Amino acid sequence: MEPQLIQNIDKKLTNKLASIAEKAALESGKYALENIDSEIQIFSKEGKKNNLVTEIDRRNQKFIISMIKDHFPDHSIIGEEDKKNIKPQLHEIAWLIDPIDGTTNFVNRIPIFSVSIGVLFKGIPIAGAIWTPWMSEKNLILKASFGNGATINNKKNKIKNILSSKLSEGGIATLPSKIENYFKINKNKKEFIGEKRVLGSCAFEMMLIAKGISAYGILGPASSWDFAAGVIIIRESGGEIFSINNKNEWERFKGFHDNYQNNYETIEHIRNWKGIMAGGSKNIVNFTTNNFTPLKKSK
Amino acid sequence: MEPQLIQNIDKKLTNKLASIAEKAALESGKYALENIDSEIQIFSKEGKKNNLVTEIDRRNQKFIISMIKDHFPDHSIIGEEDKKNIKPQLHEIAWLIDPIDGTTNFVNRIPIFSVSIGVLFKGIPIAGAIWTPWMSEKNLILKASFGNGATINNKKNKIKNILSSKLSEGGIATLPSKIENYFKINKNKKEFIGEKRVLGSCAFEMMLIAKGISAYGILGPASSWDFAAGVIIIRESGGEIFSINNKNEWERFKGFHDNYQNNYETIEHIRNWKGIMAGGSKNIVNFTTNNFTPLKKSK
Repeated sequence: MEPQLIQNIDKKLTNKLASIAEKAALESGKYALENIDSEIQIFSKEGKKNNLVTEIDRRNQKFIISMIKDHFPDHSIIGEEDKKNIKPQLHEIAWLIDPIDGTTNFVNRIPIFSVSIGVLFKGIPIAGAIWTPWMSEKNLILKASFGNGATINNKKNKIKNILSSKLSEGGIATLPSKIENYFKINKNKKEFIGEKRVLGSCAFEMMLIAKGISAYGILGPASSWDFAAGVIIIRESGGEIFSINNKNEWERFKGFHDNYQNNYETIEHIRNWKGIMAGGSKNIVNFTTNNFTPLKKSK
Repeated sequence: MEPQLIQNIDKKLTNKLASIAEKAALESGKYALENIDSEIQIFSKEGKKNNLVTEIDRRNQKFIISMIKDHFPDHSIIGEEDKKNIKPQLHEIAWLIDPIDGTTNFVNRIPIFSVSIGVLFKGIPIAGAIWTPWMSEKNLILKASFGNGATINNKKNKIKNILSSKLSEGGIATLPSKIENYFKINKNKKEFIGEKRVLGSCAFEMMLIAKGISAYGILGPASSWDFAAGVIIIRESGGEIFSINNKNEWERFKGFHDNYQNNYETIEHIRNWKGIMAGGSKNIVNFTTNNFTPLKKSK
């Protein structure tokens, strides 16, 4: 059940939001892929090690923002590559942009990165699109909006409820690099937790879940803009997303703010949100509750 | 310094071995990639969970063996998908075949898998080829033979000695899923150990090292056929490969048998060999010695 807040939202509006997100993500992704072999200028963010940004991230963010503004000049826009001193507009619809998720892979020319554009209504994901490179099709574009379902390259997308059986037959799980820092893992192994992969792009991993390639994923720790589009895409594909609540328990993900207000404080809270989510088919909650007990650090 | 054993080996012979390996790996890789979206028949090996083999593995192994036999009917051939009851021919030159390394990725249609064909002389890698899928070029084929250098898609390949600086600028390291089971990791962090990736295909990871994309890798635990081609490719690219010796210390990798004999016992030893290696640029040994202390389990 979705919260009252978004039950009555206009489905035509969410569809339009998703379509703009789709166009902007696809164009940005193609641009990144075309330029992956060129000499890319790399900047280190705030002098932090392993927190890279490239001219491609910056170009994509600029392009995506201008596309949003063409259609929705009043909406809030939050991007990973925002300049810190500029305040966004206040609006109950907010766009969350990650112009390249997986920049370290991208600068190392590993084809595991993504463009992620999510749209929130009062802090809750209602529309979004993810682009990733992919083998045969070259470009994968996932789109979803509340009440309208999800598509991959324009085809309706559904996740099958195959978690347990799939895992025992060579299923793949994407997990955080240091998962033992965040969870006590069930050692009884009633259920096999799958072959671990660490890929370095949250939205790419959410694509793998939506496509039914990963049986499930424990995602993050990552930021709101890494998750927003994937949340709605996985849900509208018939899957589910959980996060860890204040009692340090798994719970269906509700939104990036418990007490949304249309003010700068809320925007800053959403911008600074960092967390871990679990995504997969509907039975993901039982599976994660059985096998991964949150430690204090996972909050 | 290479051991006396292979110092005087005929460079024309090793070149021919590598060329046959290259042709067989390229054709097999293309075949796998063309069939990745089809309905692939999957078999579970010896009823073990997560040890899959597909009709494509079997077809590739058959194809590679027949190609080797056309040119070198007397050589030993050891493949991951061998039937257990058939004894190979005895020869001091032995071919090690992994017809698909990363089968779990392959059956899940994740484009991280490889074909690996290595050639040993008395247990020591002297030639080999690795095929992997890749973005822009679609097919990557790496080839190397002792004394003749290495190529990627026919272009000479060299690894730069850039380990430490590269790591601090967003460098990637491929590591075993459960690295803390095998090593005590230096917590002083004098050197940053890089962004961890767990990809699920040893030969694919060795390609990333040879291409200079991974700064270094701790590889495995994996089998002789997963490593053989990558060892010679990384060395002939100017990099280095270390493994863990009987004293539980890092040491330059010498070969898959300490006391090679031309008999079935040796062949079986090489077939059953499992271990962990470290690969990267020449300074990999200092780096791994400083940062990863082998635990008992790593033997």
